[in-house]
Amino acid sequence: MTRSYNFYAGPATLPLEVLEEAQANFCDYQNSGMSIMESSHRGKEYDAIHAEAIANYKELMNIPEGYSVLLLQGGASTQFAVIPMNLLGDGQTADYINTGAWAGKAIKEAKLFGNVNVVADTSNCVPATIPAINSIDYTDGAEYLHITSNETISGAQWKEFPKCDAPLIADMSSDILSREINVADFGMIYAGAQKNLGPSGCALVIIRDDLAEKVVRTNPTIFQYKTHVSKNSLYNTPASFTIYMMCLVTRWIKKTGKTNLFEQNVRKAKKIYDLIDSSDFYTGCADKAYRSDMNVTFTMPTKELEAMFLEESVKNNMWGLKGHRDVGGLRASIYNAFPEEGVDKLVELMKNFEQKS
Amino acid sequence: MTRSYNFYAGPATLPLEVLEEAQANFCDYQNSGMSIMESSHRGKEYDAIHAEAIANYKELMNIPEGYSVLLLQGGASTQFAVIPMNLLGDGQTADYINTGAWAGKAIKEAKLFGNVNVVADTSNCVPATIPAINSIDYTDGAEYLHITSNETISGAQWKEFPKCDAPLIADMSSDILSREINVADFGMIYAGAQKNLGPSGCALVIIRDDLAEKVVRTNPTIFQYKTHVSKNSLYNTPASFTIYMMCLVTRWIKKTGKTNLFEQNVRKAKKIYDLIDSSDFYTGCADKAYRSDMNVTFTMPTKELEAMFLEESVKNNMWGLKGHRDVGGLRASIYNAFPEEGVDKLVELMKNFEQKS
Repeated sequence: MTRSYNFYAGPATLPLEVLEEAQANFCDYQNSGMSIMESSHRGKEYDAIHAEAIANYKELMNIPEGYSVLLLQGGASTQFAVIPMNLLGDGQTADYINTGAWAGKAIKEAKLFGNVNVVADTSNCVPATIPAINSIDYTDGAEYLHITSNETISGAQWKEFPKCDAPLIADMSSDILSREINVADFGMIYAGAQKNLGPSGCALVIIRDDLAEKVVRTNPTIFQYKTHVSKNSLYNTPASFTIYMMCLVTRWIKKTGKTNLFEQNVRKAKKIYDLIDSSDFYTGCADKAYRSDMNVTFTMPTKELEAMFLEESVKNNMWGLKGHRDVGGLRASIYNAFPEEGVDKLVELMKNFEQKS
Repeated sequence: MTRSYNFYAGPATLPLEVLEEAQANFCDYQNSGMSIMESSHRGKEYDAIHAEAIANYKELMNIPEGYSVLLLQGGASTQFAVIPMNLLGDGQTADYINTGAWAGKAIKEAKLFGNVNVVADTSNCVPATIPAINSIDYTDGAEYLHITSNETISGAQWKEFPKCDAPLIADMSSDILSREINVADFGMIYAGAQKNLGPSGCALVIIRDDLAEKVVRTNPTIFQYKTHVSKNSLYNTPASFTIYMMCLVTRWIKKTGKTNLFEQNVRKAKKIYDLIDSSDFYTGCADKAYRSDMNVTFTMPTKELEAMFLEESVKNNMWGLKGHRDVGGLRASIYNAFPEEGVDKLVELMKNFEQKS
């Protein structure tokens, strides 16, 4: 088997050793005579997985006391709605920073529930950028401040996080667990699993107890954070196999060493950015100060050249390098499990392509 | 490998051949050099799976024109809320029939959004039963009538469905695709996947176009049926691997022949019920006229005997026979993929246990 280089924005590459372990145990998990996906979510096999995944996130992210780790269905898109449903009452105000497509989606849903003050907006900036944190005028008494830590589509990433009185809530779907952060600086962090954490079908939610307990209106039971905190994410049947895969990925991060992984992430991105900066042929789409280490976006002199490059890339077993349909250009999504050798191959292809063109 | 007999209420047994096929292709799907769970949900490999799963449900359930088939995260518990959010306006009335624990949960959420008229209630009946359909006094002009086609906990199942002017909505989580139904009799059918359709992490929703288009209030984008209809369940990243497994299960049903499967379901349940009826030792928990073919519930003369039986069953590699913690007793969940030979083994064990006791 030849592994493809999967540059898609997500679902994304998983570590081969994780896939192979899951494959080996797929039909008969720990001699239970059944697959882990057939096991009851109330049984001891799944229970151990569920507990280990949560414990590993706590360890890997140094999650302090006073926070709960939830594993919920519906992805980050569901959180766009559930956050304001629980934390933004009628007539109350939340601050949002609009850095692009994903922040914009979060803002749209929040407006259904209360006042949204967009305290900074770089969504139309070219190159894509992030607001300077000392330039932002926050709303006094805002319920929370919402940011998108990494804009998957434009390739702009927060490098330092805003500090304000309101609890900071971050959608980290495309850079969770890819770099060191201080969870205590946040009221809530959430992320779809399908980029850095595992397959699609689950969102990781890390929420401070005071926010999880907050009641601003009567919401359906399943859309209340306190439901899932009190039931340890087992109020309803969890996405058990997805969580099993997520657990295996946490083990892989622990084995790899998160510092090694985080350093590799910076190094992988830098290799592509260095080529872009040394060339007049490639142009980066994001402001140098806020370039994403997860999604490297760039263009070529013409759309025709981009199309030719995409054809070349596929011939070289590299998939998903086409930029998002809304912005065009090219994008290399290089999450935690994307191998450094794949980045080297891409850089080589880019060099050769420039020379030939 | 010895397969266990998995009598759990769900997640549940999957066909071994489905598991083996998924295992064989787990790391390298169709020579793509990646797992299907790593594939983009916008790529051709996943796209074919997504389309096939939907087409197979349409074929297997004879779903007429004018209905959409959706594959959504959040399980049936999310639908308990999303149904009234979309279909029950302030001041409007929906009829609900309360047949037990799951119907009760649906009723609780609907009450947050409009008037709920519980037009029949058998939730406290012993033995567990279903209302006679000609005894029900429906509300004139109700927005819809909601039923739970099979109560997983009590083991009572509708055998014939109520007919009224309002659209009929059924939670079929525990008996979907286990017997012939006429989809045209329903406005909407929904079911968590983890019993008859695949692993956990996805709900199948079959909704008539007029209901999907209905707007009774402004809901978040992700909680609007029309969002998912217009985006073919790809508005956000779907639970792609779960849907892949669901697709394999639909292939298995087609290969087995749904008529064979449906007949086997009746035969499997009847074997256990026949033993219960021929014995003074075992007592069925559900009214004979409404006994579930999916969840066979019964008791023994004492709790001590039940505990002894459970110990025996585990020694015989039978798992999950303990009744739900809210009702006690014993429960054999025997969904589509539960092998008939496992039912035969259970009946044999029950016979032997009675003789010894």
